[in-house]
Amino acid sequence: MTLPNHLLGTLHSLFGESGCSTREAERLAYAYDNSRRNALPDAVVFAREHTQIEALIRACREHRVPMIARGRGTNTTGATVPVEGGVVVSFERMNRILRIDPDNRLAVVEPGVLNGDLQRALAPHGFFWPPDPTSSPWCSIGGNLACNSAGPRTVKYGSPRENTLGLHAVAGTGQSFRCGTYTSKGATGYDLTRLLIGSEGTLALITEATLKLTPKPSGLRTLRATYRDVSSAAHAVARIMAQPVTPCALEFIDDVALKLARDHGGDDVPLAGAMLMIEVDGEPATLPSAVEAVSRAARGEGLETLHVAQTAEETQALWSARKALSPAQRTISPNKINEDVVVPVSRLPELVNGIGELSRKHNVLIVTFGHAGNGNLHVNLLPRDDAERQRAHACLADVFALVIALQGTLSGEHGIGMVKRSFMPLALEAGTLDLMRSVKHAFDPDGILNPGKLLP
Amino acid sequence: MTLPNHLLGTLHSLFGESGCSTREAERLAYAYDNSRRNALPDAVVFAREHTQIEALIRACREHRVPMIARGRGTNTTGATVPVEGGVVVSFERMNRILRIDPDNRLAVVEPGVLNGDLQRALAPHGFFWPPDPTSSPWCSIGGNLACNSAGPRTVKYGSPRENTLGLHAVAGTGQSFRCGTYTSKGATGYDLTRLLIGSEGTLALITEATLKLTPKPSGLRTLRATYRDVSSAAHAVARIMAQPVTPCALEFIDDVALKLARDHGGDDVPLAGAMLMIEVDGEPATLPSAVEAVSRAARGEGLETLHVAQTAEETQALWSARKALSPAQRTISPNKINEDVVVPVSRLPELVNGIGELSRKHNVLIVTFGHAGNGNLHVNLLPRDDAERQRAHACLADVFALVIALQGTLSGEHGIGMVKRSFMPLALEAGTLDLMRSVKHAFDPDGILNPGKLLP
Ligand SMILES: Cc1cc2nc3c(=O)[nH]c(=O)nc-3n(C[C@H](O)[C@H](O)[C@H](O)COP(=O)(O)OP(=O)(O)OC[C@H]3O[C@@H](n4cnc5c(N)ncnc54)[C@H](O)[C@@H]3O)c2cc1C
Ligand SMILES: Cc1cc2nc3c(=O)[nH]c(=O)nc-3n(C[C@H](O)[C@H](O)[C@H](O)COP(=O)(O)OP(=O)(O)OC[C@H]3O[C@@H](n4cnc5c(N)ncnc54)[C@H](O)[C@@H]3O)c2cc1C
Repeated sequence: MTLPNHLLGTLHSLFGESGCSTREAERLAYAYDNSRRNALPDAVVFAREHTQIEALIRACREHRVPMIARGRGTNTTGATVPVEGGVVVSFERMNRILRIDPDNRLAVVEPGVLNGDLQRALAPHGFFWPPDPTSSPWCSIGGNLACNSAGPRTVKYGSPRENTLGLHAVAGTGQSFRCGTYTSKGATGYDLTRLLIGSEGTLALITEATLKLTPKPSGLRTLRATYRDVSSAAHAVARIMAQPVTPCALEFIDDVALKLARDHGGDDVPLAGAMLMIEVDGEPATLPSAVEAVSRAARGEGLETLHVAQTAEETQALWSARKALSPAQRTISPNKINEDVVVPVSRLPELVNGIGELSRKHNVLIVTFGHAGNGNLHVNLLPRDDAERQRAHACLADVFALVIALQGTLSGEHGIGMVKRSFMPLALEAGTLDLMRSVKHAFDPDGILNPGKLLP
Repeated sequence: MTLPNHLLGTLHSLFGESGCSTREAERLAYAYDNSRRNALPDAVVFAREHTQIEALIRACREHRVPMIARGRGTNTTGATVPVEGGVVVSFERMNRILRIDPDNRLAVVEPGVLNGDLQRALAPHGFFWPPDPTSSPWCSIGGNLACNSAGPRTVKYGSPRENTLGLHAVAGTGQSFRCGTYTSKGATGYDLTRLLIGSEGTLALITEATLKLTPKPSGLRTLRATYRDVSSAAHAVARIMAQPVTPCALEFIDDVALKLARDHGGDDVPLAGAMLMIEVDGEPATLPSAVEAVSRAARGEGLETLHVAQTAEETQALWSARKALSPAQRTISPNKINEDVVVPVSRLPELVNGIGELSRKHNVLIVTFGHAGNGNLHVNLLPRDDAERQRAHACLADVFALVIALQGTLSGEHGIGMVKRSFMPLALEAGTLDLMRSVKHAFDPDGILNPGKLLP
């Protein structure tokens, strides 16, 4: 596609010389994301103001040209790949923290603010924003909201859907709107805020967000438990989540992952059938009883070791295995298939055992780890050559079928993007998909916002 | 309107003799709700099964006949009044708790289950469902979800939007669908679950809900603080919410309300300029420091007394004032106008002072109390005759204008129904309302679900 001259003129007058580019270098730089898929956009613009977005959407709508919102391109599903060309709208320069309001436990931010920058700005006030993807230093709040991104803390503090009060946005119609409130509760009309969260830039572009803040607990304790096998660890997760003290992190790492991490991360990483990293937080006085409660639940059939870190250094050492995992995987398979399926916590033992069987059946290396307290596991298939890649795809379909059979769903936090859309009918009934299509049509009747994503 | 014979036949064959009535007695009984508005429906049906609802909506759609979902009719906004006639669909007999699953911290219920019955069934498992309207013994989960109803605990534990995992429902198109998950997180498509929550039966009828459960804290402490005036108490609320220990109840009662309650509830009710009821919960070991933290924040300019209950009896005595309030108000004004506006917590002092001024300006008795920790106050205008009723309506418009000027919104938990729809344009931009209308159209293209409610 080449953009109509009239639209190009509008882009230049809206964004200026430095805010708009059709040069190949920029187009290449904004063609891909962390999914490693790619497709060239026709232009890239760098937004700074809500009014620019409104005018841009109106202009693009007039010419039926696709628009792809982009934070920092760290998503893993191809959600920002401009599969039908068009204009990439980068929010990286629209990155001001507009207001930190500890009295009302809220912050108002532009979408380009990095998650890590926000957390740093909140810390002196004694607050944090719960969503904490591992990519926190490099990913934007806009991307977090659009994907409903989460992280270890979600098990206790929730995802963006539980931690956002309101949004300012522009729909695919070109219509600006505010939704939600500046208050911590509300029952005034339909909840458009949550509808936009997780919609992957397909309904509206978010230009401002009012985030709900949580007081930072003053104490934290870290535990590490190793188990004879994945099944024992998965049972322990279910036991921990069935008792009243909710950990603020409950991460699972399987035997394959531990071996990998040890090869790359050194002797601090234990060798075991599986490992759990557990954190509890709260007022310091409450921590001993919290540690005791989760330890009691962690113990049982198959437990091998249980360590409670006593110092900051020890805490860091305990996390070393988890930290070594990402780089380790990349060295084995640059083409890893990175899924983040989720099942009810009590079904985790069936999931981890089932994944083990599928790995053997399809002869594909699978590394499994992740946010077990939510039943959310990163299932990483690591094919090393073309033949393995073919087998991996067959295996993946079986993994999804297993997850659905266990009353789980396709994605816990990464979203659907382009890579999982064809699996959506597995997870959602035809009636649900039809309604989602109607909602899409209501916000974006011409289908110009991020075409080819989310809906099959 | 009289129902077409063909539709009447369908109703009878779907619901049987005992599940369907067109007799005047039933029609009268289902003509009104707690708003005291009323309008006769043409028929009342008592649903027991999802499939009945699906067939019913299809039949009503064919004949363009309105359908009004009804839980127990305790809403205060006329949300179940059949203003255009049609069929009232009562869920009172569809009231089975289908599954209590403590391991996955969820319960699956039919919509007619009473909130109080659910809480009682959950207690032996050590869990509760956070939404706790005062009407808990008489209101249904379906009504709670459809209104996003809340209560004192919401300040710490959230409203239905934060405590619901998934729904089974039938849209106004007659299309059945499931949305959400059985897992504690998910990023698989648009969040239709939250969209239905708070939609007051205008988008879809809910036939099953998967609710997120919370472990019941083992300890609770109750405090009562009295203040010289409403402004000092409102400032104390803002101080309490700006420190890290979040109370599980933070209720405000103004001087007028206290006087009323004392007249009806006796000498246990203190006379003061204003009163706060504060509760903190958690593991017993944590309670002394929590009480200390909230007490510190409660102290300050204008504090007169601060009591911590030491026994269950004392706790009950401390709550006596709050409990005496509802009956007390009814004796003064059977036609009270019961609002539940909400503002950011830091604006509470301006709100309570402003309401005092408006009460004087319009010469209308106003009693203010409510869930101050969320900035959510029940503003009750108590006109005693027709002249006062006229003044009360003018006053109400000023109250809403004040709330909006303070960055608040029309409703914290009661919803919009028929009585507040005309004020919606005050709270929401035209663009937002347009999108809500498009969403409505997507779910209910013929406008047969609860017409005349929510949207202006
Ligand atoms: C090393 C690494 C670790 C990661 N760890 C985690 C993790 O722990 N948990 C997790 O959930 N994810 C994780 N991710 C995935 C990714 O970081 C998240 O999805 C993140 O939220 C994406 O943010 P972004 O700014 O990069 O968004 P992008 O990738 O640029 O965009 C993501 C989606 O958001 C949309 N979007 C962006 N801005 C807007 C806007 N203003 N309005 C509307 N739509 C918009 C885009 O169109 C796209 O659909 C990880 C990624 C990496 C590379
Ligand atoms: C004494 C008293 C105290 C109260 N205290 C509180 C309080 O503290 N907090 C609070 O928030 N509210 C309170 N309320 C208001 C009321 O109780 C709540 O709104 C409650 O949730 C309504 O439940 P219900 O079953 O009576 O629903 P109804 O009044 O029958 O219906 C309410 C709405 O829900 C819709 N609906 C019902 N079932 C379904 C379904 N299955 N599918 C789709 N839509 C459906 C209806 O169409 C209607 O729009 C109080 C009311 C009274 C009388």
